Amino acid sequence: MEDDRLRHGQPTCHVAFGEAMAILAGDALQALAFEVLAADPQLAAAPTLHVEMLRTLAAACGAHGMAGGQAFDLAAVGQRLTPDELERMHVYKTGALIRASVRLGALAAGCGDAQTLAALERYGHCIGLAFQIRDDILDIVGDSATIGKTAGKDVAADKPTYPAILGMAGAKAHLAELTAEALAAVAPLGARFAVLVDLARFVAERAS
Amino acid sequence: MEDDRLRHGQPTCHVAFGEAMAILAGDALQALAFEVLAADPQLAAAPTLHVEMLRTLAAACGAHGMAGGQAFDLAAVGQRLTPDELERMHVYKTGALIRASVRLGALAAGCGDAQTLAALERYGHCIGLAFQIRDDILDIVGDSATIGKTAGKDVAADKPTYPAILGMAGAKAHLAELTAEALAAVAPLGARFAVLVDLARFVAERAS
Repeated sequence: MEDDRLRHGQPTCHVAFGEAMAILAGDALQALAFEVLAADPQLAAAPTLHVEMLRTLAAACGAHGMAGGQAFDLAAVGQRLTPDELERMHVYKTGALIRASVRLGALAAGCGDAQTLAALERYGHCIGLAFQIRDDILDIVGDSATIGKTAGKDVAADKPTYPAILGMAGAKAHLAELTAEALAAVAPLGARFAVLVDLARFVAERAS
Repeated sequence: MEDDRLRHGQPTCHVAFGEAMAILAGDALQALAFEVLAADPQLAAAPTLHVEMLRTLAAACGAHGMAGGQAFDLAAVGQRLTPDELERMHVYKTGALIRASVRLGALAAGCGDAQTLAALERYGHCIGLAFQIRDDILDIVGDSATIGKTAGKDVAADKPTYPAILGMAGAKAHLAELTAEALAAVAPLGARFAVLVDLARFVAERAS
């Protein structure tokens, strides 16, 4: 849907193979995610958690997840969004799959505890938005070679971004708030979850 | 991907809402299929069969199913296909999901018996192709009001069809063979599967 020419320094799929084949490749890869998750013999999750993992992935992809967020995005081109509308778009478009990734890790490890899952949901919500804010900031302050895609494309396309809507200082402050909230969410879970602390810091500070 | 204007007598989604939104609606509905299948409280299948149902659906949608078949179709536009190539395209593009539908019914009913599932696989393979041949025939002999979509569109688009490649008599003979094979596949399974006999006959004889 986006008119990017580069991702990770390579031509995007639709540039290399055409839009129709790129869409089909995406369809096939998304189906493969479900197939791998359903068929992985190394996954030791109990069958009921296994089904819950598949439900989690499906919910994150659909109308209340990635596809719905992309639809918001499509409808938002050329519009002036409020901060709430921008946040809602990202909560769906990229946030849902990031939240799902955190939840899937917990479920794969056999964790079905509602309180832990709720803390991880909060953590995933925050780092998902933080990831997007950092992305928007890098589009302005980064260079194409380091970030692996075309810098300045959001501004050029007049896309709604956090710096455009909150200002650069406002965007950085919101990123810091979300990172603090993510760290607070997982703090009570103890040392087993330390990798999530590192991940939240990486998301907030990454340069590529 | 196809330039149809009507389905079931209504404007197609991409005509009514634009191509990008139509693709997103398809993405969202496909994810919803997995979510419903994973979350349906009325589904009484044992958890291991439940996971196998999700795997079956995923495999039918992906590179070795619908998405792969659509890619064959895309590559075939304007090409002269052999009968084998045409058949392979349809085995993937529409056949995989029809085979999966039959298998899912069996799994939902608690049937994990390999011999029964193999018979149903054969049945699904045959009626899937039969469905497509009947579709191609109706494009030529049907009228738009009855079939609910634009008659003659395949011929107009120079698309590879069974009548174009086998001739009308050859297409009808192949349809009859496949129907007979489908009926033979389920005959040993007995009266519980009688609905599949009716379905095979409907597929072969339908006018809309």
